Amino acid sequence: MIGAGIVGSTGLVGEGLIRIFASHPEVYLRVLMSRHAAGRDVAEELPSLRGIVSMELVEPSIEALVSECDVVFLAMKSAESMSFVPDLVSRGVKCIDIGGEFRFRDPAVYEQWYGNRHEAPELTARAVWGLPEQNREKIKSADVIGNPGCYPTGAVLGLLPFIRAGLIRSDGIVVDAHSGVSGAGRQYSPKTDNTFLACYENLRAYGVGTHRHTPEIEQALSEITGGDVKVTFVPHLAPIDRGILTTIYARPADGAKPEAFGDALKAFAGPEPFVRACAKVEDVRTANVRATNFCDVGVALIERSSQVVIVTAIDNTVKGAGGQAVQCMNIMFGLDETAGLDRPGY
Amino acid sequence: MIGAGIVGSTGLVGEGLIRIFASHPEVYLRVLMSRHAAGRDVAEELPSLRGIVSMELVEPSIEALVSECDVVFLAMKSAESMSFVPDLVSRGVKCIDIGGEFRFRDPAVYEQWYGNRHEAPELTARAVWGLPEQNREKIKSADVIGNPGCYPTGAVLGLLPFIRAGLIRSDGIVVDAHSGVSGAGRQYSPKTDNTFLACYENLRAYGVGTHRHTPEIEQALSEITGGDVKVTFVPHLAPIDRGILTTIYARPADGAKPEAFGDALKAFAGPEPFVRACAKVEDVRTANVRATNFCDVGVALIERSSQVVIVTAIDNTVKGAGGQAVQCMNIMFGLDETAGLDRPGY
Amino acid sequence: MIGAGIVGSTGLVGEGLIRIFASHPEVYLRVLMSRHAAGRDVAEELPSLRGIVSMELVEPSIEALVSECDVVFLAMKSAESMSFVPDLVSRGVKCIDIGGEFRFRDPAVYEQWYGNRHEAPELTARAVWGLPEQNREKIKSADVIGNPGCYPTGAVLGLLPFIRAGLIRSDGIVVDAHSGVSGAGRQYSPKTDNTFLACYENLRAYGVGTHRHTPEIEQALSEITGGDVKVTFVPHLAPIDRGILTTIYARPADGAKPEAFGDALKAFAGPEPFVRACAKVEDVRTANVRATNFCDVGVALIERSSQVVIVTAIDNTVKGAGGQAVQCMNIMFGLDETAGLDRPGY
Amino acid sequence: MIGAGIVGSTGLVGEGLIRIFASHPEVYLRVLMSRHAAGRDVAEELPSLRGIVSMELVEPSIEALVSECDVVFLAMKSAESMSFVPDLVSRGVKCIDIGGEFRFRDPAVYEQWYGNRHEAPELTARAVWGLPEQNREKIKSADVIGNPGCYPTGAVLGLLPFIRAGLIRSDGIVVDAHSGVSGAGRQYSPKTDNTFLACYENLRAYGVGTHRHTPEIEQALSEITGGDVKVTFVPHLAPIDRGILTTIYARPADGAKPEAFGDALKAFAGPEPFVRACAKVEDVRTANVRATNFCDVGVALIERSSQVVIVTAIDNTVKGAGGQAVQCMNIMFGLDETAGLDRPGY
Repeated sequence: MIGAGIVGSTGLVGEGLIRIFASHPEVYLRVLMSRHAAGRDVAEELPSLRGIVSMELVEPSIEALVSECDVVFLAMKSAESMSFVPDLVSRGVKCIDIGGEFRFRDPAVYEQWYGNRHEAPELTARAVWGLPEQNREKIKSADVIGNPGCYPTGAVLGLLPFIRAGLIRSDGIVVDAHSGVSGAGRQYSPKTDNTFLACYENLRAYGVGTHRHTPEIEQALSEITGGDVKVTFVPHLAPIDRGILTTIYARPADGAKPEAFGDALKAFAGPEPFVRACAKVEDVRTANVRATNFCDVGVALIERSSQVVIVTAIDNTVKGAGGQAVQCMNIMFGLDETAGLDRPGY
Repeated sequence: MIGAGIVGSTGLVGEGLIRIFASHPEVYLRVLMSRHAAGRDVAEELPSLRGIVSMELVEPSIEALVSECDVVFLAMKSAESMSFVPDLVSRGVKCIDIGGEFRFRDPAVYEQWYGNRHEAPELTARAVWGLPEQNREKIKSADVIGNPGCYPTGAVLGLLPFIRAGLIRSDGIVVDAHSGVSGAGRQYSPKTDNTFLACYENLRAYGVGTHRHTPEIEQALSEITGGDVKVTFVPHLAPIDRGILTTIYARPADGAKPEAFGDALKAFAGPEPFVRACAKVEDVRTANVRATNFCDVGVALIERSSQVVIVTAIDNTVKGAGGQAVQCMNIMFGLDETAGLDRPGY
Repeated sequence: MIGAGIVGSTGLVGEGLIRIFASHPEVYLRVLMSRHAAGRDVAEELPSLRGIVSMELVEPSIEALVSECDVVFLAMKSAESMSFVPDLVSRGVKCIDIGGEFRFRDPAVYEQWYGNRHEAPELTARAVWGLPEQNREKIKSADVIGNPGCYPTGAVLGLLPFIRAGLIRSDGIVVDAHSGVSGAGRQYSPKTDNTFLACYENLRAYGVGTHRHTPEIEQALSEITGGDVKVTFVPHLAPIDRGILTTIYARPADGAKPEAFGDALKAFAGPEPFVRACAKVEDVRTANVRATNFCDVGVALIERSSQVVIVTAIDNTVKGAGGQAVQCMNIMFGLDETAGLDRPGY
Repeated sequence: MIGAGIVGSTGLVGEGLIRIFASHPEVYLRVLMSRHAAGRDVAEELPSLRGIVSMELVEPSIEALVSECDVVFLAMKSAESMSFVPDLVSRGVKCIDIGGEFRFRDPAVYEQWYGNRHEAPELTARAVWGLPEQNREKIKSADVIGNPGCYPTGAVLGLLPFIRAGLIRSDGIVVDAHSGVSGAGRQYSPKTDNTFLACYENLRAYGVGTHRHTPEIEQALSEITGGDVKVTFVPHLAPIDRGILTTIYARPADGAKPEAFGDALKAFAGPEPFVRACAKVEDVRTANVRATNFCDVGVALIERSSQVVIVTAIDNTVKGAGGQAVQCMNIMFGLDETAGLDRPGY
């Protein structure tokens, strides 16, 4: 059995990982670390886990991780992971970071958008951006994964099939996304204002033109095209718990045939265990992917206005966070890619 | 006092009109018509109105409308209004139709998108599309109003200030809108699947490329620009009751200065009683316009990707329906444009 | 015109008062006070009011209240009102306190349940508990009103008709209530945990056996019966914004005839402007009273288990707070009791 | 492997069963029957299952069930199961009926409350009411299970520990329950009026004194006490998807010591795999049991009003339906009682 550890166990991402590992056939949780709840049982902190999981939360410690774990998931608040990953990697522990620190090949991009100095710039080029559908081969041999952000997951999975097939232009792409409130985490966040009254019966855009996931989407698309892609990304907050619906607008490439879009989608989704092609763009619904690692994708060509409309749905707390992290782990350790991720949603 | 009548009184639109007239200082509801509930008191059908309004619902009848009313609001299901409006207008009763029948100058556009034969094609050129912010002068002398659809209201009010000011290009416009479930009416609709379970904790697009509000947006923009504007319009269903958030993507016109966008918005909103310019695009929220006739508008220029992002919020059941209809009526009868519409929301 | 002031203008209660005064025909808001937002316009703090109300928020000050106001609404956090009311009253300003400080005739009850020392015990016997349906005559001549709590309003309005008519026993009463999240105010409250994720898709009881509204319900019922009534009160939090549904269980008095319950309810509601008797207990719904000052009441006698089930619905932010306060004010100043409160809800 | 079949596969109950069997280690779904969707793949009907389950839906047929299945779950609309169960049982197939037909030992009770003639009265005394915590021994040897209703599950699991321990009186019990909208099924139900607009931002009671689950609760309590227990049961509809919160009011037995309640609860829950005792009654929350087979229970004695308050939470679609059915099946076939039910919720 492979031993895994989580640092930052009681946040929404940590909780999602614990749920998955509760039924993972080949990986065992050895260490659950939590700074604020060390000494307590995880089921006291996360009462929905009572009767399923019982394990003491311990203080974060590199020594304990090195001695117990083959792989560590870093799910603490942004920036903290930089003080763990270099040591862990140098001592042979594979790291999957679920914050933004290891997503950018160029540490300057991180520093510009996140406002922090990068403390492990020597690792950024070695870290692999963990979207299996784009980087499966690189993930196999990676020892540091920068797990994709939730929005970039929904955006890039929608664009990949059509950019690769040469069916859409890479300039002028618009990514309009609506996320559930779990994207802001479980704690109260004055920045998001995630009280019930501020979210319920309300729709709003936020971070227009400034959201940190923008350069992450652009890096992925630039790697695919070989160019310097710029996108317009506008996230919104919707009164649901989990789920992101992403509606993407792009212009068809010259000469793209109408029937080619659906064909490219089916060809892309076919071998992918977690991408489901929908026959109609209207069939893509966040409710259908809730609590699963699936990304549902649909596409429509609107000929009268010459626009391609791509819609994707993910559960931001699974495919957009811990589920994708486990998918990466499965690939890194040569396991069945769906291990622990094959149960139906709710 | 001016006498008003409603045909189709117990649907969401009719109910919204009755609420407004409960405190309108100069117009009196004389006739409430309802085919399915004739003979009952309106407060039995709409129990939230008990203690506020009491009035018998009567069978629809042109004679009764002519003898009692100066103005009639037609709020029945689509297509039925065509058998009322010609007679009413010819007998001197002003008509405000809240369906799609009198929104299009060219009846062929109606026939193509709505799939019905137009039974009063002689009136379509004479009818005025009732968006006061675009057509106030024409509304003053109109006797038939095609009350704008909810989505076109949110879309055109976002685009008007910037198209008029020459700040955005009229090609390649994308209108992405998320509506509350009240847009589908109060009854169960298999087409929308508006059960609680199908809407709650769910986000989805619908009518992609085919929604009937598309040509209505295009007609309005074409009239403004004098060109033949085509837009990409994608509506979505969000789990709220009332409200539409519309996020519009357009390319800046050559030479448009960054500061010009906010200035144009302020200049446009200044004299308008029901348009509020928001300092930041993130300040536009459906909760802030709930139960009011306001349209909040914000704009951001994203220079790095050369996109203008405009966000608008309306209450689809007020500014997107009966509130706008009453605003038109106020204009038609020379009343204060805000009469009956000046109370705060909830 | 009567001049009114609000201390604590930007909380939910203050906001509710401002909405009502925006259309009150005989009372004028002269002063809006707010400690944390003094110097700003109220519409900047409460953006849904933009275009409706514009007024500068000022620092709380007794001098300003005395010089400008005939009546003051105290809507700040609990306990603070005790340092305003004695001065205001002694200088001839009528006070309506929307906290718990002036609800109890016996200051010791306040001190026991609220855990604060009462700083104006000389006023508690003089203050009137402002439920018009119980204390209308006393309210007429009152100069200090302790505005009822939201739960006591829903509970006592359900019990009053049947206790007065001698139809139920006053022992063994159970008051089970479910409230929307607005009951916890607009700010984040760690005690309630009113984040979206903690409230949405969740139901829970709180304050079982310890909620401060318990002695308030008991005081009202004891005054009616002349006895020492004890009730079991269990509040719950439900994922709605506004509204309290209260389900009350009581045993029928010996010899009470089944038909007497509906009759007593109709007789009670008849002359009351804000109580609506529902024909069936199932017709009582929070949605029907939303944004209104109504309390809907229904009753059922379950003969097989010898229980009376009474269900009431109010909007906690109107009849359970500022609406009831304005109703009291109308009575105190000899105005039409429904002035400012006669508009339909949403 | 044990072979299982489902009749009525595409409703919410059938879907819940399919989800469970997707990871049940010892039972295999052999037949999925559906009258209205026969011939289609189940994942077309239930798109959230795409990529997880693929199986053709077939016409209901007793022959097919007998030839393929050791156990059959009957999840069609009420009443239909009576035409399947007698044949299946006589041919050696164990039956778990998830409707009301086999819950009552006395068919006259069924006929009175359900309004149907019972077509298999010879089986009702033989059928076991499948609440494992009450009837585990009988379930072991049963061949027909009347799977408990959702409300009776939450009510009886709350009362069992305290009635058995002699801590509460069995007269005067009040069961107040609030259910999510999934209790009404997936289809539109005019009776429930389960449209989004009718449920959202609304709370209401229904079926007061007449709900069919009343006699089921009473039968269970009467069997425990040996008496003829009558309860007052009032269900409510709350705007959540899944979950029932049940608040039960009972009077303490003479001489019951305060500390005995918590002790009795812990003693009861200790050996039960799916009952979790909560330290505080406020810790019982529907969110904590969502998508699990757990029933959380808390108890408080309110000494000042001499009432015991018990709160329970279940997921009505799991412990209140298919999860409990699988738990029964596990017991009937000598499997680990938690098989297929041991995964964390969401």
